[in-house]
Amino acid sequence: MASEAIKFLLGDDRIPRSWYNIAADLPEPPSPVLHPETRAPVTPADMAAIFPPSLIAQEMATEREIEIPEPVREVYALWRPTPLFRARFLERALDTPARIYYKYEGVSPTGSHKPNTAVAQAFFNHADGTRRLATETGAGQWGTSLAFAGGIFGVPVDVFMVRVSFDQKPYRRAAMEAYGARCVASPSEETAAGRQILSEDPQSTGSLGIAISEAVETAATREDTKYALGSVLNHVMLHQTVIGLETIEQLALADAVPDVIVGCTGGGSNFAGLVFPFLAETLRGGRRYRIIAAEPTACPTLTRGAYAYDFGDTAHLTPLLKMRTLGSTFVPTGIHAGGLRYHGMSPLVSQLLDLGLIEARAYDQTPCFAAGVTFARAEGIVPAPEANHAIRAVIDEALVCKQEGRARTILFNLCGHGHFDMQAYADYFAGKLEDRPYSEASLTRSLGGLPEVSAAE
Amino acid sequence: MASEAIKFLLGDDRIPRSWYNIAADLPEPPSPVLHPETRAPVTPADMAAIFPPSLIAQEMATEREIEIPEPVREVYALWRPTPLFRARFLERALDTPARIYYKYEGVSPTGSHKPNTAVAQAFFNHADGTRRLATETGAGQWGTSLAFAGGIFGVPVDVFMVRVSFDQKPYRRAAMEAYGARCVASPSEETAAGRQILSEDPQSTGSLGIAISEAVETAATREDTKYALGSVLNHVMLHQTVIGLETIEQLALADAVPDVIVGCTGGGSNFAGLVFPFLAETLRGGRRYRIIAAEPTACPTLTRGAYAYDFGDTAHLTPLLKMRTLGSTFVPTGIHAGGLRYHGMSPLVSQLLDLGLIEARAYDQTPCFAAGVTFARAEGIVPAPEANHAIRAVIDEALVCKQEGRARTILFNLCGHGHFDMQAYADYFAGKLEDRPYSEASLTRSLGGLPEVSAAE
Repeated sequence: MASEAIKFLLGDDRIPRSWYNIAADLPEPPSPVLHPETRAPVTPADMAAIFPPSLIAQEMATEREIEIPEPVREVYALWRPTPLFRARFLERALDTPARIYYKYEGVSPTGSHKPNTAVAQAFFNHADGTRRLATETGAGQWGTSLAFAGGIFGVPVDVFMVRVSFDQKPYRRAAMEAYGARCVASPSEETAAGRQILSEDPQSTGSLGIAISEAVETAATREDTKYALGSVLNHVMLHQTVIGLETIEQLALADAVPDVIVGCTGGGSNFAGLVFPFLAETLRGGRRYRIIAAEPTACPTLTRGAYAYDFGDTAHLTPLLKMRTLGSTFVPTGIHAGGLRYHGMSPLVSQLLDLGLIEARAYDQTPCFAAGVTFARAEGIVPAPEANHAIRAVIDEALVCKQEGRARTILFNLCGHGHFDMQAYADYFAGKLEDRPYSEASLTRSLGGLPEVSAAE
Repeated sequence: MASEAIKFLLGDDRIPRSWYNIAADLPEPPSPVLHPETRAPVTPADMAAIFPPSLIAQEMATEREIEIPEPVREVYALWRPTPLFRARFLERALDTPARIYYKYEGVSPTGSHKPNTAVAQAFFNHADGTRRLATETGAGQWGTSLAFAGGIFGVPVDVFMVRVSFDQKPYRRAAMEAYGARCVASPSEETAAGRQILSEDPQSTGSLGIAISEAVETAATREDTKYALGSVLNHVMLHQTVIGLETIEQLALADAVPDVIVGCTGGGSNFAGLVFPFLAETLRGGRRYRIIAAEPTACPTLTRGAYAYDFGDTAHLTPLLKMRTLGSTFVPTGIHAGGLRYHGMSPLVSQLLDLGLIEARAYDQTPCFAAGVTFARAEGIVPAPEANHAIRAVIDEALVCKQEGRARTILFNLCGHGHFDMQAYADYFAGKLEDRPYSEASLTRSLGGLPEVSAAE
């Protein structure tokens, strides 16, 4: 059965010993992060209010490899290395000559790739003396993952959860509480940002931007508390590279080299985690891969966003990042892939798009659910709605292979399972899902509100 | 890190090639199954209306090993061999000298051990020409697993889902539909049994016993349809033995021998799957293990049931099985571990209890949730409420080890994750869960209604 293997596994001893820092290999250094008030490049001291020193160092690091501490590797061993699958059943269902592989991050305790960075962030915060972590969560995946990681290292976690999810998804809250975290509906009375919103609209259902403001304010104003973000930042991308590093080793076991690599993008972290280690080869003059970022038409950051400095949050408390952005006031239409509803994008991923090393495509949500159902019926795993965007791109590519009679090798990141998102599938089967792409008018408005940055841009 | 390994993995090529049939090694053959009307031992012909020939043969098989067909092994490879974990984080949290190992079945597509038999049953039905499968489901785990398996082998599946779950858990229904199954609220207008109940009580919320009656009637009255059961029967236990067979090989890698083996019991299948291959050694004169079945006080089949012939369903359409039973009219109090709320028990498991080869313990639900939360905070995985019963027993054993200063090796089956059951945890954290053990009066009543069986008993 070896030649017909479905899974390619690695033992605990093959968990990577270092993360890969793509900043070391970029032709130009990443654009500096700017202070929200002075608009001058931030210093480590500026960031010290909200992040611990070791993560600030990683955010700005220029060395190619950053060692993964042994306690982090030990926690990783609870689910890593994750399996690489050859999607033989999907290939048959599509009757395609394509060879499809997927890295499956859904075997983590919380069912997605998020713990890869949550565990690292909790460890370094604990090591640097952080007594409490504050974060935000939309649909709940990130909050649950940080709750898990904080619990492991004994760092209490406060999660500001967007009010509408807090009310509609009590089981997400229960998962965070199961890990010992405190979950607060946002906007809350606990922060000035939250009180301000509530004074204007006591019934506010909240937003991710508001919840970020609340978490950042909590970290900035409490001596013992730091902030943790689940995507976008350089050190988050760094931690996720374990995905691609393992995949390279597993593809060698499978004797396969990908022609096309696909991931879905919200803030960019699962995509970066898979593709950065492959780009390491390209950036050092080696093989060039076709790399596709799949995003929703409701929030088309890479395909329609500006490449400009912008804030990460609504209240404009965060530093300014040079990134693909739809504008911090952009409100995505209501789609079920909550993890892809963010106005910005990882600066590193944005820079790679600018360099022409990756391409991006936007998909409506119903064709993505159709792809997810095809995948579930073939491979068994019901994917998270976010991952369905990657699967849509993969199936389209595989069908091109069929049309052209070419046996390309396609690799993608199945970043999580959909067990927490079955209501989305219920709505899909009930015909309640609509394709609601962004509106040009609203995008023009939000892009018009981009902050002015003179010199640095 | 090898000596400190957390996971013990096996490759696709180590998926077992045969299931283990414990009937071959029992000192006495299992008691015959009786016809519901004549009360004479059933013949294969009697069972042909509802089961395909190959599964009838397995139900009555006496050979020790039954080959696993290659197409079944190929589907198993989507998640098997499942990992064996050393629970180092739990050991530390409990500060116990005990060595705790768990086999984790939650990595399957549906998040539990159920697909082990669902895939086998769908394959053999397809091979024997079955055109449609009917089954019942309570909380939804079994229905989802058979839906997945039927989808893989192209056998359409009708699932009769207990009305109250159908209404309260639309995401379970969505999972079955994602795999292409049809899900019908039970009692339904589709069967005489369902219509009878509805004529008496149009608002009936249903029960597992009623849903079984509907599924069995559908199979018995439709030429093209067979019935599939997710637990209790011999062939189901047989298919689950892949769990224990893999575990034995993995423990050898870990250089460990269990002193105590624990599983939770509802119909008996995840428990049997783990322990039967260990009992193979005992029954052939080898090592004797301490084996504990953990069940809920709300449905204490092994600790309080009679060992007698009884029906498997409410409408008394099924054959009579000699088993531990609380009586087919027994209604368990409302607990969240839906998979453990069944009045009967696998005849094979019942016989092993009778032989003194296993012991049983009943637990209230709140201490089980407390154990589950301890486990989640240490090991990351939020367990299914059913599995929490096993974990309660394991933690109690580990604390005895601590008290006695003895480093016993404890093995258990973590039969599924709790991602579909977070409402139960939400209720637990909200203090809404009560311990509601069975009532003696209700048990006396239901045991008084056991069918009379003269000769065979």
